[in-house]
Amino acid sequence: MNKQIKLLVCVAGLSSLYALNTGVAAQTQAKPAAKPTMQDILKASQASDWRSLDPNNTLYLDLEKGRVVIELAPEFAPKNVVNIKTLVKEGYFDGLAMIRSHDNYVAQWGDPGEKREFKKAAKKVEGEFTVKYKKDAPFTRLPDVDGYAPQVGHVNSFAAARDPKTQTTWLTHCYGAIGVARGNETDSGNGSSLYAVTGHAPRNLDRNITVVGRVMHGIELLSSLPRGTGALGFYEKPEERTPIKSVRLAADVPEAERSKLEVFRTDTANFTALVEAQRNRGGDWYKFAANHIELCNVPIPVRIVK
Amino acid sequence: MNKQIKLLVCVAGLSSLYALNTGVAAQTQAKPAAKPTMQDILKASQASDWRSLDPNNTLYLDLEKGRVVIELAPEFAPKNVVNIKTLVKEGYFDGLAMIRSHDNYVAQWGDPGEKREFKKAAKKVEGEFTVKYKKDAPFTRLPDVDGYAPQVGHVNSFAAARDPKTQTTWLTHCYGAIGVARGNETDSGNGSSLYAVTGHAPRNLDRNITVVGRVMHGIELLSSLPRGTGALGFYEKPEERTPIKSVRLAADVPEAERSKLEVFRTDTANFTALVEAQRNRGGDWYKFAANHIELCNVPIPVRIVK
Repeated sequence: MNKQIKLLVCVAGLSSLYALNTGVAAQTQAKPAAKPTMQDILKASQASDWRSLDPNNTLYLDLEKGRVVIELAPEFAPKNVVNIKTLVKEGYFDGLAMIRSHDNYVAQWGDPGEKREFKKAAKKVEGEFTVKYKKDAPFTRLPDVDGYAPQVGHVNSFAAARDPKTQTTWLTHCYGAIGVARGNETDSGNGSSLYAVTGHAPRNLDRNITVVGRVMHGIELLSSLPRGTGALGFYEKPEERTPIKSVRLAADVPEAERSKLEVFRTDTANFTALVEAQRNRGGDWYKFAANHIELCNVPIPVRIVK
Repeated sequence: MNKQIKLLVCVAGLSSLYALNTGVAAQTQAKPAAKPTMQDILKASQASDWRSLDPNNTLYLDLEKGRVVIELAPEFAPKNVVNIKTLVKEGYFDGLAMIRSHDNYVAQWGDPGEKREFKKAAKKVEGEFTVKYKKDAPFTRLPDVDGYAPQVGHVNSFAAARDPKTQTTWLTHCYGAIGVARGNETDSGNGSSLYAVTGHAPRNLDRNITVVGRVMHGIELLSSLPRGTGALGFYEKPEERTPIKSVRLAADVPEAERSKLEVFRTDTANFTALVEAQRNRGGDWYKFAANHIELCNVPIPVRIVK
């Protein structure tokens, strides 16, 4: 790796849970080679283990406190992604707000008054809850059992599931997943109100709503928002809402202002090793090997490239 | 129900995800009796479906913004619960702080400087990661598959798991679970630093650390804390830490200042009905029945009794 990198917090659970003064225990004794940890695997990773985010499918949700970077997955929701990008290019979200923070569930944004007009964007977009299953499509399958789907795994660094019987594949509602809010009708969503999963994966939403991507950086800006005190975590007063400065497509942002991120690829031997390192953890802290990893506990590391 | 009650946010996912101006859709059409929703079941619940929290095993963690109510489960961690109660009675936590908020993982509290002295409390307490499995012990088993344990379910309104082969039962790391931070040695925890799960259930911690109870009210005060920017989510500067006013045992708090809470019992027919209502959701919004519920997605409702 020639690039200077800063590894971001991925999925948690890297560490002991002891309250140390400095936060990290110094565990640098000389010891025989042990089972590699996730950190070992990431340190030894090669440039080919990572991929850049596609600027034409990456959104920057800019808040006062920082930027939330979302990568869209057009292969899973082509029509919704097109409409969201149309809304973004229209400046639809600029000056709108976070309208909801529902504890252990979602943070949602959009137009609190639902009055802002669409220019070119469509008002109704067909729900894209699943896509057609293709036997030979890339899918790094987890060997682990899952209660919500017959097969789970990863597609291009997104958590996914598939069912050969119903011939469907879909993105799952893991932490950080981005979905298109809708009413009771399946075509009532259009991307003008989006949510991010900020709690324990509500997998019951899978195949019921369109997942369009996931937060690759800055999820803590959404997950630490004050919870709304209205029904379903909606904010009751305008002043409770966090304003959105802008939502822009990375490709439309000057190069110098872009967030330079890379995500760990999920179709590599090192990803398989990383999953195993998390399934049965190395290090001195763990006493009991889970011998299992749940889909939404699989970390998909993201790093900043300087 | 003669008592005036206010039902608290349980586990999320009750609702459509549409951004309505008011937050909730008015859906009060006359329709044939449909599959009951969780709300229907709670509305029709009887006094016998609920139990009070035990004031001798309930802690009030009081912060500037409000109170976190924790119920301890001495049947799962008798020695650790005794030590925590000893620390609480010594006033150990009063004036200490939240020392860590690790996104999608835990919020942890204790003594940032690790200098405060213990009076009667023990410095080392044996880890109580599991208790002996008893075939006839109360355990409302979920029929749903679980990757982390051969059997999962609920004991006295706590999410739990058990393994007849290894003859063990344990509390699981679902959202809101409270655990005893420890170092590498299994007896290195003592309850002076505790954490609450504030992210996707880190079930890999199960059987590796002592779970002593769960947050019954006020988890949002912990889950919405600003994330620590140090390693593992520890706060780097003293001013970033949220101070703890006090931690008290409910029984030691004057009656008038107590939080009057009741938790939904998990050994009733109505609980089984509630689980089924969440496994395959009624209402007009859901189009696809999951036919599964993951242990940590099972809501355990709590209500305020006035």
